[in-house]
Amino acid sequence: MEVNADNFFKAAALDKPRVTNKVGSNVTLINVMQIAGLNTLGISIARIDYAPLGQNPPHTHPRATEILTVLEGTLYVGFVTSNQPAPNRNKFLSKVLNKGDVFVFPAGLIHFQFNPNPHKPAIAIAALSSQNPGAITIANAVFGSDPQISDDVLAKAFQVEKNTIDWLQGHV
Amino acid sequence: MEVNADNFFKAAALDKPRVTNKVGSNVTLINVMQIAGLNTLGISIARIDYAPLGQNPPHTHPRATEILTVLEGTLYVGFVTSNQPAPNRNKFLSKVLNKGDVFVFPAGLIHFQFNPNPHKPAIAIAALSSQNPGAITIANAVFGSDPQISDDVLAKAFQVEKNTIDWLQGHV
Amino acid sequence: MEVNADNFFKAAALDKPRVTNKVGSNVTLINVMQIAGLNTLGISIARIDYAPLGQNPPHTHPRATEILTVLEGTLYVGFVTSNQPAPNRNKFLSKVLNKGDVFVFPAGLIHFQFNPNPHKPAIAIAALSSQNPGAITIANAVFGSDPQISDDVLAKAFQVEKNTIDWLQGHV
Amino acid sequence: MEVNADNFFKAAALDKPRVTNKVGSNVTLINVMQIAGLNTLGISIARIDYAPLGQNPPHTHPRATEILTVLEGTLYVGFVTSNQPAPNRNKFLSKVLNKGDVFVFPAGLIHFQFNPNPHKPAIAIAALSSQNPGAITIANAVFGSDPQISDDVLAKAFQVEKNTIDWLQGHV
Amino acid sequence: MEVNADNFFKAAALDKPRVTNKVGSNVTLINVMQIAGLNTLGISIARIDYAPLGQNPPHTHPRATEILTVLEGTLYVGFVTSNQPAPNRNKFLSKVLNKGDVFVFPAGLIHFQFNPNPHKPAIAIAALSSQNPGAITIANAVFGSDPQISDDVLAKAFQVEKNTIDWLQGHV
Amino acid sequence: MEVNADNFFKAAALDKPRVTNKVGSNVTLINVMQIAGLNTLGISIARIDYAPLGQNPPHTHPRATEILTVLEGTLYVGFVTSNQPAPNRNKFLSKVLNKGDVFVFPAGLIHFQFNPNPHKPAIAIAALSSQNPGAITIANAVFGSDPQISDDVLAKAFQVEKNTIDWLQGHV
Repeated sequence: MEVNADNFFKAAALDKPRVTNKVGSNVTLINVMQIAGLNTLGISIARIDYAPLGQNPPHTHPRATEILTVLEGTLYVGFVTSNQPAPNRNKFLSKVLNKGDVFVFPAGLIHFQFNPNPHKPAIAIAALSSQNPGAITIANAVFGSDPQISDDVLAKAFQVEKNTIDWLQGHV
Repeated sequence: MEVNADNFFKAAALDKPRVTNKVGSNVTLINVMQIAGLNTLGISIARIDYAPLGQNPPHTHPRATEILTVLEGTLYVGFVTSNQPAPNRNKFLSKVLNKGDVFVFPAGLIHFQFNPNPHKPAIAIAALSSQNPGAITIANAVFGSDPQISDDVLAKAFQVEKNTIDWLQGHV
Repeated sequence: MEVNADNFFKAAALDKPRVTNKVGSNVTLINVMQIAGLNTLGISIARIDYAPLGQNPPHTHPRATEILTVLEGTLYVGFVTSNQPAPNRNKFLSKVLNKGDVFVFPAGLIHFQFNPNPHKPAIAIAALSSQNPGAITIANAVFGSDPQISDDVLAKAFQVEKNTIDWLQGHV
Repeated sequence: MEVNADNFFKAAALDKPRVTNKVGSNVTLINVMQIAGLNTLGISIARIDYAPLGQNPPHTHPRATEILTVLEGTLYVGFVTSNQPAPNRNKFLSKVLNKGDVFVFPAGLIHFQFNPNPHKPAIAIAALSSQNPGAITIANAVFGSDPQISDDVLAKAFQVEKNTIDWLQGHV
Repeated sequence: MEVNADNFFKAAALDKPRVTNKVGSNVTLINVMQIAGLNTLGISIARIDYAPLGQNPPHTHPRATEILTVLEGTLYVGFVTSNQPAPNRNKFLSKVLNKGDVFVFPAGLIHFQFNPNPHKPAIAIAALSSQNPGAITIANAVFGSDPQISDDVLAKAFQVEKNTIDWLQGHV
Repeated sequence: MEVNADNFFKAAALDKPRVTNKVGSNVTLINVMQIAGLNTLGISIARIDYAPLGQNPPHTHPRATEILTVLEGTLYVGFVTSNQPAPNRNKFLSKVLNKGDVFVFPAGLIHFQFNPNPHKPAIAIAALSSQNPGAITIANAVFGSDPQISDDVLAKAFQVEKNTIDWLQGHV
């Protein structure tokens, strides 16, 4: 089979603003589903739009580390370390990023980005160390799965009453 | 340096019941910190104890797939798929496991085990595909990190009022 | 294709004793042939039964490290290091394992487990760092292959007469 | 050791234009030398500036695939396939990229980016699938190494007279 | 640290015949212990000498596949597949190799090379897919380890009397 | 499917001299295209013939490290390091190899071998750490691709006039 440049190309319009979702963000990921030539090559790229006060909510990538740079605006970003021994047990590491700054979210850790500016949107470019990194939004996976995880299980996991869980499940 | 058998051994007492924590479980993980000879070898093993109605709450392993078999009792287990296109978007896959059954939790996905029996404990042996798999308990990382993630961020992420988030942060 | 929990499940009956073979053991391996969802995930699990004075005879896993814990009884286990310089050249490392102990057999090294108790069976759970670890029983591969390896070759390799080799080939 | 956010951060000023070199480009790479937390994580990011008619000249990354998106201007990009059988032998694949387009340069292949606009600069963000991808500029490595590769060798390799090689060596 | 060519070089004299051992072979392996620059690069090379009727006896490489070509003479080579289901269970695959032929021994499988010529030596060059492939000579590891594996264990493993095992242990 | 020895064998005639090309060399590579059994095994082997004053011209392997030994004659070999900080920036490391010497060319770096003897051919055996290492001859990829890379681009890259580039493109 003869290869051609279009196997390695996508007119992805990463320069264009996106309509953001209900939490105020939009991730446009270009991975092996969009560019077949990425197969076996272990990388992908994304544009992320943030509305004023919008966020890319707490999530993980099961198969990738993420490196991000801010194109426009300001981002308050952070990730939480795993259940390690002290002093690093569930430690929340955060930073305010300005235009041109770079930040790394290690593979599999829960992280988020939040636009603290009430008036201006923000934009970031992120790259991920997998051709198919996956993404798990914690709120959706825990409280909005199909079917729902039993509220008995979640009530005990989060140490609250079932009606608090039901409330969460009703809002995601 | 002369190697000896103790570099590959741990008197781990995996046959002994453990006192369970406030959500009714206890994970005894034998990884490269306990057995130095595991270095570079990509595997670890754990015993998990479950109190009656206890659970190993929703969590992920950032660097490992888990395979589990039930030694005693019954477990209701499940994991949630990632933000893929339908029909697999945030799909909750679950199963009731009896003694001798085997189940797989793919790398990086949120999963849990719950002992539905109100009278009897349960026991499982699990193996993980890393010498240092890591574990991230969702409730602890999201609502119990040190320091806390801002309740502004979490309120929007979970689409609830800040007092609900504060309630969750106060209980983990 | 819609995934479902059965892609990650096997009613493997790992709680049930197995009839042991002529050397007094039985390995019940759950790998990617039994659970298709293990594909690319790099792990498998096994129950091993040992008759009184039975053994899982000297063997290697060409693609996996093994980690093992004893569920019932006592095991005398060991592995032999490779042709390295002294003091580690073909060193035999061994240990007596009791219930709850954990031991590691590094990838590709010749190892065995032996139940020294003349009256009671033993049981172990082992995990392997491959979805398809493979197993090579030394006696079978060297003296019981199909077709047989020439006894000229083996006589010189083991520095004995051909009739000793023939004897071995007749008994495996 | 206690980790902190600065292990994963660099005030890299990737939003700021750079002075370009004699071929009209400047690559600002943020890799594990700038952000220690990238260790073992397999990714890095770069801003590339292109002067009018400037280029990031033919080069390879010995340990990484590159994915690139155009932030400003237009780029004419291409890579050459390896010595494979026809029809893909040393095939030059090229594309004109506009703002927001994405292109992939597979690991180890010779590639370049050229800004065809005689009046306006261009800017790209690129990500690479290694914490330390390396870069080999062909002109510098072949004709500008320290010490020089013998012109006898290069004359035959490029099938020209030694004075042509000397001319090239004198200009890189 | 400044690198230099000697970090990647060894005056290994692979062109010179070696004195062969008691089974009639000698393996001269050039790995990361001889050439430090091989670190992380995943390859090594060896010259193998075979006396008339000599052999490189049954062995495995725990961390490498081997590819071999015959420089001088004739070799009868083979390997045995693992304990797979029929028709590939412990199958012995063999071939007579002449000068210039190439053969592959897959990672971790038991293999040997034998020089069937009673008058002439043979020579091969082999390459291995690891900077430190390891080698386990079956006879030495099973019957010649330090200390010896118990003859109780080996007698049952090989299904012969202990005095046959003792005989083998006395001759390796 | 039943495996057989021919899946792992090639009558490659690596003992036979080859007719060399216009730069005085010929690489006979045995990879997964010649031996299907190499699939997933990460290694390949080659014979390289060098005419008197012939060379295997500057090239890279995008997916492999190479280790080489000289069978006949003498070789002047070298590689150039990448664009690292001083003192290792584009450093040319070279060595004269005699029969039996071993040299390593790290993955992805530009390297060559040259036979300095005006009267005698040379022969080497090389092994590569990939079942499909790829090869990129710099002269062919840069000045002889199909279609040609624009001489505008190359003139600036090599800092010479377009007619010098055209001259080079006309001779590769």
